[in-house]
Amino acid sequence: MSRDIAFYFDFVSPYAYLAASRIERLAAAHGRQVRWQPVLMTVLSKAAGTQLTPFVPMKWDYVRRDVARSARLAGIPFHWPPGFPKLLLAPGRAMTWLATTHGEDTAAAFARTCLTAYFGDGVDIEDREVLAGIAARLGVERAALLAALEDEAVKAAFRQASEDAIAQGVFGVPFMIVDGEPFWGFDRLDQLELVLRGTREAA
Amino acid sequence: MSRDIAFYFDFVSPYAYLAASRIERLAAAHGRQVRWQPVLMTVLSKAAGTQLTPFVPMKWDYVRRDVARSARLAGIPFHWPPGFPKLLLAPGRAMTWLATTHGEDTAAAFARTCLTAYFGDGVDIEDREVLAGIAARLGVERAALLAALEDEAVKAAFRQASEDAIAQGVFGVPFMIVDGEPFWGFDRLDQLELVLRGTREAA
Repeated sequence: MSRDIAFYFDFVSPYAYLAASRIERLAAAHGRQVRWQPVLMTVLSKAAGTQLTPFVPMKWDYVRRDVARSARLAGIPFHWPPGFPKLLLAPGRAMTWLATTHGEDTAAAFARTCLTAYFGDGVDIEDREVLAGIAARLGVERAALLAALEDEAVKAAFRQASEDAIAQGVFGVPFMIVDGEPFWGFDRLDQLELVLRGTREAA
Repeated sequence: MSRDIAFYFDFVSPYAYLAASRIERLAAAHGRQVRWQPVLMTVLSKAAGTQLTPFVPMKWDYVRRDVARSARLAGIPFHWPPGFPKLLLAPGRAMTWLATTHGEDTAAAFARTCLTAYFGDGVDIEDREVLAGIAARLGVERAALLAALEDEAVKAAFRQASEDAIAQGVFGVPFMIVDGEPFWGFDRLDQLELVLRGTREAA
């Protein structure tokens, strides 16, 4: 069994952004590596038969407050991006391509920069030129990234990632799987850490 | 504004049981009182347009693990009751009647005993004789409790409690409201405590 922490996220999920802000440090503290896997909540939700929160008014009223409070209490910079929520496809496709052509580390760095740009600074990360700029700062050729975003094989691979996640029992984000054990939500990082600590002590 | 912590729960919710095991100590540490309010998740869920978790198989598979893990990591005794889940009406009706006839403290003690009996010991708390026995140990006349369970006015009052909760924005349980601020879930007790601590320091 892999010792990686599988970290499933959607670029549009604020709770995934909060978890993303902490997951690398948490993993490093326990000698684990994070495998960043972008997915689409729209696909997960359809497969699981759940509703996306913004379409449940009473819950959405609460979640808007809860996200902001969770960020504030955790000391993580957070602002609602302009036009939130919207379907974000380009960053997931870009990351999928980066992972195969430039390696997992570059892809993960790209993802973290995108999430911080979106939820920290309100940058439109569905804008291809914005993504090309972020990639360029990681040493990726702009033209190659822009071409990848139009590549049907890349689109298909990103779509398949959500199906693969569903096969692992993933029905929402952020979702972490470590040593076969599933954890759903930013609010489960504490439990994930307790379990990792127990694993280390038992090792 | 009331300084009470409004604590909305359903006797059938394992997360409400976990929260119930901690809420009194948390409130007392910050000079607050808990107002225990039983509601029906079936009514909340219909009003909010959400699905009850056991009817969402992927989510239910996860939640079954998460509940047991949350209890274990929190050190709270927990066992899935026989025949779980089922609609529990009698304990909410009994508690509604107890609150008006024997006071909030007796009603809350009754609720805590019922939750521990159900999730700690697997006792059937829809059984009227069981409820009468729990009430009797709190000094309540058995016959009076058994009569109250058949009283249409008591049934209506318990039903109305869910409607009143919905009017406060409650869409799931456990749900806590303190100083007008809402907290949903056993996993929000830590944030509730942080907010109470901040309120005390600012006072």
